[in-house]
Amino acid sequence: LVKVELINTGSELMLGRVLNTHQQWLCRRLADLGFVVTRQVAVADTARDIQQAVQESLSRATLVITTGGLGPTSDDITRELIAQMLGRRLHEDAAVSRQIDEFFAHRNRPRPVGTHVESMVPDGAIVLPNHYGTAPGLALAIDADPAKTGSNESGRKWLIMLPGPPRELRPMFDLAVTPWLHRELKPEFFACRTLRSTGIGESIVQEMVAPPLAALVAAGLEIGYCARPGAVDVRLTASGESAARLVAQGQTIVEKVLGKNIFGYDDEEIEQVVIRRLTEQKQTLALAESCTGGAIAHRLTNVPGASVVFRGGIVSYSNDAKQTILGVKTETLLAHGAVSEEVAAEMAAGVRAALGADYALAVTGIAGPGGGSESKPVGTVYLALAFPGGVKVKKQLNAWDRETFKQVTAQQALELLRVTLLKI
Amino acid sequence: LVKVELINTGSELMLGRVLNTHQQWLCRRLADLGFVVTRQVAVADTARDIQQAVQESLSRATLVITTGGLGPTSDDITRELIAQMLGRRLHEDAAVSRQIDEFFAHRNRPRPVGTHVESMVPDGAIVLPNHYGTAPGLALAIDADPAKTGSNESGRKWLIMLPGPPRELRPMFDLAVTPWLHRELKPEFFACRTLRSTGIGESIVQEMVAPPLAALVAAGLEIGYCARPGAVDVRLTASGESAARLVAQGQTIVEKVLGKNIFGYDDEEIEQVVIRRLTEQKQTLALAESCTGGAIAHRLTNVPGASVVFRGGIVSYSNDAKQTILGVKTETLLAHGAVSEEVAAEMAAGVRAALGADYALAVTGIAGPGGGSESKPVGTVYLALAFPGGVKVKKQLNAWDRETFKQVTAQQALELLRVTLLKI
Repeated sequence: LVKVELINTGSELMLGRVLNTHQQWLCRRLADLGFVVTRQVAVADTARDIQQAVQESLSRATLVITTGGLGPTSDDITRELIAQMLGRRLHEDAAVSRQIDEFFAHRNRPRPVGTHVESMVPDGAIVLPNHYGTAPGLALAIDADPAKTGSNESGRKWLIMLPGPPRELRPMFDLAVTPWLHRELKPEFFACRTLRSTGIGESIVQEMVAPPLAALVAAGLEIGYCARPGAVDVRLTASGESAARLVAQGQTIVEKVLGKNIFGYDDEEIEQVVIRRLTEQKQTLALAESCTGGAIAHRLTNVPGASVVFRGGIVSYSNDAKQTILGVKTETLLAHGAVSEEVAAEMAAGVRAALGADYALAVTGIAGPGGGSESKPVGTVYLALAFPGGVKVKKQLNAWDRETFKQVTAQQALELLRVTLLKI
Repeated sequence: LVKVELINTGSELMLGRVLNTHQQWLCRRLADLGFVVTRQVAVADTARDIQQAVQESLSRATLVITTGGLGPTSDDITRELIAQMLGRRLHEDAAVSRQIDEFFAHRNRPRPVGTHVESMVPDGAIVLPNHYGTAPGLALAIDADPAKTGSNESGRKWLIMLPGPPRELRPMFDLAVTPWLHRELKPEFFACRTLRSTGIGESIVQEMVAPPLAALVAAGLEIGYCARPGAVDVRLTASGESAARLVAQGQTIVEKVLGKNIFGYDDEEIEQVVIRRLTEQKQTLALAESCTGGAIAHRLTNVPGASVVFRGGIVSYSNDAKQTILGVKTETLLAHGAVSEEVAAEMAAGVRAALGADYALAVTGIAGPGGGSESKPVGTVYLALAFPGGVKVKKQLNAWDRETFKQVTAQQALELLRVTLLKI
C-alpha cells in the first residue's frame, strides 16, 4: 500500500479565517486513483512548523503532497524551506519565468517584482505547469537518506508541492499530477462505493444493513456510516484482488435492504438525481422559495445542464412578491398567515402557472433566529409540490441554525420531488 | 502560550467524501478566545491511527481536542480507545443514560440498542452535555506521565472529545467548552484583525501595505495575505501586552492605503455589509439572476434580518421568465441575445419595478461548461444595477469552473451595489 500524507500550510487556516477545501478535493481524487490518504496535517506559515510537518510525513509516507506557500508574498516560504531542508539549490528556470511574463502581458499588467521567486526551482525538481496562475507546482524525488529525511524505510519517496488557490491547484493536479502518479507509483486494487439514504436514522441504518453484510465483512469488506443533515451515507470499501467483487456484492445487499430510501451513489447530490430524472422524463420544474431564499435554485443550477429542465424560480421574501408574482390570495395570507399549508399550496400552483412548468416546488417557513411564535416556532416549514395531478403539502420542523435550516429544508423539498418522480 | 492541537477522526474525511468544516469553525472560535491552534490533524477511524495521533499531539500541546467517533455505530471507537490508552475504566453514567432515554421519548421513537455505548464515561471525565443529539462530549485532565502519554513537558494537559455532527458540536463548544476554557486555561493577550479588500491583486496589495507597516513589523506585528476569488485579505496579528495597540495602529495604516477597496473586516462577507448598509439607509433590494441561478439570493438570505431590505428575486433561467415576469422585450432578446448589456439593463429595471424596490441587481452570462461562442466565450457576464437615478451595466469575463464562476460573479454584483451605496 502506497501511503500518502497531505500537508496544508497557511496561518489563515490555523486562525479559522478560511475553509480548507483542499483536503476533501485531493483525497477524493486520490481515492479514485486507488490511493488512500492516511493523514492530513495543517500547520501555520512558520518555518519550524512546516519543516517539522514535512519531516514527520516523509518518515511515514511514500508520497507527501503540500499545498500553499508558493506565491509571491513574504509569508510564502514553502519552496525555499523545503529546498533548504533537502539540501537542494534553487535556480531560476527560464521557461517558468517566460510563462509568468506572458501571464501578465496577456492581462496588460506589469509583472510585479515579487513574482521573481515563483520562477525559482530546486535542483532536480520536475516543474508542474500552472495554467491558471503564476507559481508552478514542483515534484521532487527523494532517495532515502535517514539522516536527512528521518526516513525509517528504504526506497524512493516523493514530495509534491502545489499552489494554494483551488482554481490553480485543481487543473494542475488533473493535468500534471494524475498522469505522473500512474507512471511513477502503481496504485493498489481498491474499491469504494457510497450509498446515500434519506428518511432513516444512523443507528437504524446500521441495525438494518450490518447483519446481512456480516459474511462479506468476514471476507474483508469494510463498512462506514456517516450522518449528514437529512441523509445517512453507507460506505463500502475493500482492497486487494477481490475488492471490486466484495463491494459489488455488498452494494446489492444494501440496495435490497434500504430500497427507495437510497437516493444516490458516491458524490451524487439529490439535485443531480432530480435534474437527471426530469431530463429523462422530459419534464420541467419551477420554484417558489420563501425561507430557503434561493438555496434550492442555487443547488439545482450548480448542476451542468440544469437549464434544460429548470425554468426558473421566485424568491418571494416579501408578501407583495407572493401576491403579485405568484398570485397568492390576500384572503389566504390573512386567514392562515404566510407560513401555512394553504399559502405553500398556492405558491406552488402559482409559480407552476407563471413559468409554465410541469412540476413546481414551494417552501414557506421560519428560518430564524427571529420570527417564531408559540403555534409556529422557529424551524416550522411547509413544503408544497404542484404536479400535473394536483398539489401535495408536507409540514416539517427543522429547528436548527439558519444555514442548516436552509440546507435541510432544501434537501427535504428535493426529496419530495424525487419520490414523486419515482412513482411515474 | 497555550498550544492547542485538533484531531478530526473519520474515514470519510480520508476518502474525501465529506468536507471538514470543524477545523475552520473551531480554530476561529479558539482564536477569538485568545488561543491559536498550532496543528490540525485528520486520520481514519482506525485504532492505530487515532492512538498515534492523540499520543503525538499530547506530547506537543497542552490542549488536544478530538472530533468524531463518539456515536453509536461500529466505526465509532474514539471514546473506548482513548480510555484504554490513558488507563481509565469506562462506567455507565446514569444522568447521561436518562438524557438519551428522554431524547428518544421526546421523538416518540424507541431507543436503539447501539446508543448504550454513548452513556459510557471514562473515570474522572467531565461530561459536556449534548443538547442536540445523544452522545455527550468528554473532558479529561491528564497529569503528566511521560511513560503513558509521551509527554516531554511538565504540567497538566487536557483532552476534550467532541461529537462529529456540527449541529451537536457547535452548541456544545459554546455552552460547555468556552466557559471551561476561561476557567482552566488562562488565554494569552492576542489580537487579530483581517481587512478584506477587492479590486487589487495580492502582489500589489503587499507592495502597497508592507512598506508603511515596516516599523510596526519590527515591533512585533505580523502580516498575512490571503487571495480568494474576487478578494484579498490582509491579516494583522500580534501577541503580548502591546498586541491590541500594534494591531490597531496597523489597521489605521492599511485603511489609509487601501481606502475604499476595503469592503469589510474579519469574517464579514460582502452580503452582510450590503444588508447592513441598506438597512441603515432604509432602502430595499430586488434581484434578477440568470447565470448565478439563485446564488446571490442564497448569500443575501444567509444574513439574519435580510427580510427587512430584501424584497425578493427572480431566477430567470428561461427566456420566457425574462419576458413574462421581468418584462424584457422580445426585440431586445432577438437583437442582442440573452447575454448582453441591453438585456441585463432591462432585467434590472424590470425586477425593480415588479417588486417595488429601490435598488435591483441583475446578472446574465454563460456559466459553462457549454453555451459559449467566439464572440461570447464561457465566462462572459453582464452585471446591471438599477437605482433611483438610472441603470449601470458592467461587463466581466469570469472564465472559471461553474461553481467558482457563480461565486465570483455573485461577489462582483454585490461589490457593484456596495460601491454605489458608498456614494450616497
